[in-house]
Amino acid sequence: MVQERAITAAVVLIGNELLSGRTQDTNLSYIAKGLVTKGIRVVESRVIPDDHDHIVTVINELRKKYTYVFTTGGIGPTHDDITADCVADAFSVNLPIHPEAKQLLLNYFDKRGIEVNDDRLRMARIPDGASLIDNPVSIAPGFRLHNVFVFAGVPKIMQAMFENVLPTLETGEVINSVSIRCNLGEGTIASPLRAIQADYPNVDIGSYPGNTERGYFVTVVARSTNESLLKAVAERVTQAILDKGGTLTDLPE
Amino acid sequence: MVQERAITAAVVLIGNELLSGRTQDTNLSYIAKGLVTKGIRVVESRVIPDDHDHIVTVINELRKKYTYVFTTGGIGPTHDDITADCVADAFSVNLPIHPEAKQLLLNYFDKRGIEVNDDRLRMARIPDGASLIDNPVSIAPGFRLHNVFVFAGVPKIMQAMFENVLPTLETGEVINSVSIRCNLGEGTIASPLRAIQADYPNVDIGSYPGNTERGYFVTVVARSTNESLLKAVAERVTQAILDKGGTLTDLPE
Repeated sequence: MVQERAITAAVVLIGNELLSGRTQDTNLSYIAKGLVTKGIRVVESRVIPDDHDHIVTVINELRKKYTYVFTTGGIGPTHDDITADCVADAFSVNLPIHPEAKQLLLNYFDKRGIEVNDDRLRMARIPDGASLIDNPVSIAPGFRLHNVFVFAGVPKIMQAMFENVLPTLETGEVINSVSIRCNLGEGTIASPLRAIQADYPNVDIGSYPGNTERGYFVTVVARSTNESLLKAVAERVTQAILDKGGTLTDLPE
Repeated sequence: MVQERAITAAVVLIGNELLSGRTQDTNLSYIAKGLVTKGIRVVESRVIPDDHDHIVTVINELRKKYTYVFTTGGIGPTHDDITADCVADAFSVNLPIHPEAKQLLLNYFDKRGIEVNDDRLRMARIPDGASLIDNPVSIAPGFRLHNVFVFAGVPKIMQAMFENVLPTLETGEVINSVSIRCNLGEGTIASPLRAIQADYPNVDIGSYPGNTERGYFVTVVARSTNESLLKAVAERVTQAILDKGGTLTDLPE
């Protein structure tokens, strides 16, 4: 099988509130689902605090490892919003007020009667060389600097920014998936699954147990860029379930 | 202020399903909230795939950096459950069948008429030197090896395992928090918050915007091990909100 260059990504979730349990992140799964549609594989994610050195280190480590890095959080007007500073420092560039970003904010503040002050204008500070990412929700833009994309943390804003950049990303081989659910225990189908995985190293086979009011079930998920391999695996998995006396069940949980 | 040794932790969430967006993690916030009650600070979290080398590298990096490492996921019977193997490799120890774990499983399988097979007995493989963590939900135990705690990924099981080990952890200075919500924009209170944070470097002050049917709000969260500092900060924040013409609002969202 010809191995094309994989398009990879890391997601960096920035914020003390994620590490204290105050806030339940939903941004990772949103970003991951979107990237799957473009054939981009999220290889890892980090959740890190509002700590300058920690953020700079992680950005510098990940931007060299992966095609893209997406960060969420820390681009508001308050003292704990330090992501722009950290990205500028990671790339050793300045962080001036960006004229277009400033004008966007001034227009928005003017229309809504919001006081202009230094803290609010901090949101117009954009690292040298970065391009703006439109924020249709609350105007203050995100930005892209080389392969690093900086989004807000508030999910509604993050999602709008992400949808704006998604079409601009390089497309990898799209990873298709097939899910097969059955009423067997994981331990019952583990042996045939192991054999199927060994026969199809280019298909990623996962087994996920679950429980609903209707009882225990296992969902087998196969993922691959190659649809014919995926089809062959699905047939083997289905046959293995039937051979073990299992019943296929419908998917909605 | 006397700086006692901080008790720190990292949480490692293992599973391809978390990086494809298929599964929304809830284990990090559960663990983080529990650790807060013991004065243990989660300094970072990683979400990583079912990849042997990646898991070994991350465990070895984090176990040396933090007091505790907690992993979730990858301890079931199927081929993609490789966490026990990786932890054993990280510590360069063997991974034999643990007699007590095996007996627990055999009793459980016997009582429920579940077939005993090699895949199911994989769940009794425990790294040399590790102690078992009780799993009251589905019996197959987690384990602790030195400062690394290995939990299941299924939230109900993970939570039961976590609650079992929580009382055994070293207690740090408990981090108390106070939350103050108001109807001002973040940009309006950013300047006084910045000044208060500068005056109280040992209090961690965060500002979190939100939106409900009742309108826009900001929640200021102050966290510290020192209650008198926390009280002083809460008073300063409250006064700043009132000075800016804001109104305190009740907390439930």
